[in-house]
Amino acid sequence: MHLTRYFLPVLRETPKEAEIISHQLMLRAAMIKQSSAGIYSWLPLGHKVLKKTEQIVREEQNRAGAVELLMPTIQSADLWRESKRYDAYGKEMLRIVDRHERDMLFGPTAEEVVTAIFRDSIKSYKELPKNLYNIQWKFRDEIRPRFGVMRGREFLMKDAYSFDLTKAGARAAYNRMFVAYLRTFARLGMKSIPMAADTGPIGGDLSHEFIILAETGESQVFCHADLIETPIPGPDTDFDGDLEPIVKAWTSMYAATEEMHEADRFAAEVPGDKQLSARGIEVGHIFYFGTKYSEPMGCRVQGPDGQMITLEMGSYGVGVSRLAGAIVEASHDEAGIIWPVPVAPFEVAIVNLKAGDKETDRACSDLYAKLTGAGIDVLYDDTDERAGAKFATMDLIGIPYQVIVGPKGLKAGEVEFKIRRGAERQSMPLDAVAGVVIERVVGERVLA
Amino acid sequence: MHLTRYFLPVLRETPKEAEIISHQLMLRAAMIKQSSAGIYSWLPLGHKVLKKTEQIVREEQNRAGAVELLMPTIQSADLWRESKRYDAYGKEMLRIVDRHERDMLFGPTAEEVVTAIFRDSIKSYKELPKNLYNIQWKFRDEIRPRFGVMRGREFLMKDAYSFDLTKAGARAAYNRMFVAYLRTFARLGMKSIPMAADTGPIGGDLSHEFIILAETGESQVFCHADLIETPIPGPDTDFDGDLEPIVKAWTSMYAATEEMHEADRFAAEVPGDKQLSARGIEVGHIFYFGTKYSEPMGCRVQGPDGQMITLEMGSYGVGVSRLAGAIVEASHDEAGIIWPVPVAPFEVAIVNLKAGDKETDRACSDLYAKLTGAGIDVLYDDTDERAGAKFATMDLIGIPYQVIVGPKGLKAGEVEFKIRRGAERQSMPLDAVAGVVIERVVGERVLA
Repeated sequence: MHLTRYFLPVLRETPKEAEIISHQLMLRAAMIKQSSAGIYSWLPLGHKVLKKTEQIVREEQNRAGAVELLMPTIQSADLWRESKRYDAYGKEMLRIVDRHERDMLFGPTAEEVVTAIFRDSIKSYKELPKNLYNIQWKFRDEIRPRFGVMRGREFLMKDAYSFDLTKAGARAAYNRMFVAYLRTFARLGMKSIPMAADTGPIGGDLSHEFIILAETGESQVFCHADLIETPIPGPDTDFDGDLEPIVKAWTSMYAATEEMHEADRFAAEVPGDKQLSARGIEVGHIFYFGTKYSEPMGCRVQGPDGQMITLEMGSYGVGVSRLAGAIVEASHDEAGIIWPVPVAPFEVAIVNLKAGDKETDRACSDLYAKLTGAGIDVLYDDTDERAGAKFATMDLIGIPYQVIVGPKGLKAGEVEFKIRRGAERQSMPLDAVAGVVIERVVGERVLA
Repeated sequence: MHLTRYFLPVLRETPKEAEIISHQLMLRAAMIKQSSAGIYSWLPLGHKVLKKTEQIVREEQNRAGAVELLMPTIQSADLWRESKRYDAYGKEMLRIVDRHERDMLFGPTAEEVVTAIFRDSIKSYKELPKNLYNIQWKFRDEIRPRFGVMRGREFLMKDAYSFDLTKAGARAAYNRMFVAYLRTFARLGMKSIPMAADTGPIGGDLSHEFIILAETGESQVFCHADLIETPIPGPDTDFDGDLEPIVKAWTSMYAATEEMHEADRFAAEVPGDKQLSARGIEVGHIFYFGTKYSEPMGCRVQGPDGQMITLEMGSYGVGVSRLAGAIVEASHDEAGIIWPVPVAPFEVAIVNLKAGDKETDRACSDLYAKLTGAGIDVLYDDTDERAGAKFATMDLIGIPYQVIVGPKGLKAGEVEFKIRRGAERQSMPLDAVAGVVIERVVGERVLA
């Protein structure tokens, strides 16, 4: 992409309304723009990050055997009356009356819709187990939306729903999502730690929040430091096999959010030098809820013996739009964002220090052609801005690798190669730089 | 994808509520499921078609220089008050009041939102021209939604908005979208014809509807038969160059929808043997509207001489979810849907006639591995359904190529290869079939 043809209205000043760093940087980097309270447009740069994030989430859901569909944003209130949640949900539900005076709502989640789809479609135990997911915009009418996309009203969520014949089956479905989530966040360049979450009236131990550690995180979390080093299951993990050992390895050590924290147990179970207390951001939540929806909504199939079986269900959420903010919280410096390659809006930037100069233009164009020809996602700054502003913009928007091309260097056949993380800069022969860049980018695309 | 792991609840009966063929077939093929009136879930099969359609629309927008962003579904009424459309829009607008009693709405279109983004972001003529587009769910509260996704309430639309300094610039922007649309629909396997549309108070000749010819189309259209044979601009079209000759070639011949049809002119301009009268489906609309929004909303930039310039705008819509229905209308037979390869939910089906039989299972698995290894999108029917039901399902869901593998054929080292269009079947050596399938599919992926 040529910058002159792109839409990147970066801000030099930090907008006053932004309290946290991800909100500030996402506004300044022209990733998002507020449309109304808690509702954002995703400008081209942010949109690319969102799409790449979504795609990684999708790939790991597919790997774990979940099947993608797409449910509508506007739902009928009648479905929510079946599950008895319509009145209970409160003011966070955006309630709507259509032109025929029918009660509708903008879905804050989709248990009811997916349970109705399953109930109306599947009649036999032979079709089980199944896990259906979608990546769709949701709305929760937060009383005080803030922190940009971290706590917006309209947000993109991946929500999966598993259907099983037995509790043991539901546990296996839960484990598949548990492992998929570990892989998903690792591929996004982040260290996530699953932490026991409240199961409310459902009971049991099948509810975990996935927490990203970040200095500016929203809440305090406590865990065994060794969790940081626990290995992520590889891409060859057998999702048809028994995943319980992996889940055990991650859940046998202490890990709790503030709400679930027990100081006594923490002190007793974790050696002093392993007691990690840090700030965290919730990016995912998995939850087994049994027959909570299938029972009142009549989601049953015929078993092998002809008896009707009420299905065991669980739900599994990832805040996709929130993740973009979480990555910024976890990966930035004073100059701006530092994108991990897998979600970088562009993998490489070419900075032309003298647009209009024949030699410089030609060197940049050749390099651009070479890199894009190799499938690299490149932003080429071909504007006539001054050098300082160009560097500031590239650092702000966080492109992982930058190649700086100017007439002086070119006379010696050299360009500058800059690694955004650490701000390391080195001279390099023009002939060599494409090879170096391609090798690095391709090597970092798949992190787990 | 193994069918045993997929979610494909096809219907053997045609649902009574479906009046037109695309609605019937999309329900029967388990592409969609109604959630409430005019609102559908896209089941896995339909979701794949929708995503492939969306991606082709996206690629052609990008090729034409448009830049993708994403605007929210929920918009503020205040923006629509600025353009004076809030009261004027009528009951098709889904109006919403949030918990703070603010007037909101589910966007039926996004001129106001994009104009506000542009106005707040771009200050100088140097940044022009620009074309911003998004692919997002819209809502129009139709009084009588029907025909499935062809006239739904919640629908997926690609909407692009161009910003130019001059009328001539706006015309060039219009031409780029005109050509992009010709390419888009051709790549989807359809013949589209641009037809002059009403420009209302704006006047001029810059408004065209793109119409797909289909026997079951919603309205009557009239055009010069030679338009059918007019060549589609190739992928190497220079979108920075003058596209007026291409647009001229397409607009100099008579083409009009029922509303714009002039029988006298048709008779005078088109020779009798070239007078084509057919049924058509509108799948796109491009429209130049000048300063209709930029003027009241104050969308201006500073020109080279310091004077403020009110921007010239146009908008360009494609009904993405409607397209899926339009393709079915244009491409089906008595047995079901016939997908063009570029949008087929799966490109190839492998039908195992005796799941559980060692030799047959192995032959199918090997073939599946070979095809997926070559990047082919394969649905493998590994169920224990009877053969007749398997054939009926594959024909119904319209997979373009089918490989039928049974123990009898395998004894002679043979499988059956079936082309969905025309229902041609032939025996073929098992060793040869992968090569044949791959060559055909790859060859048909890019139609224009």
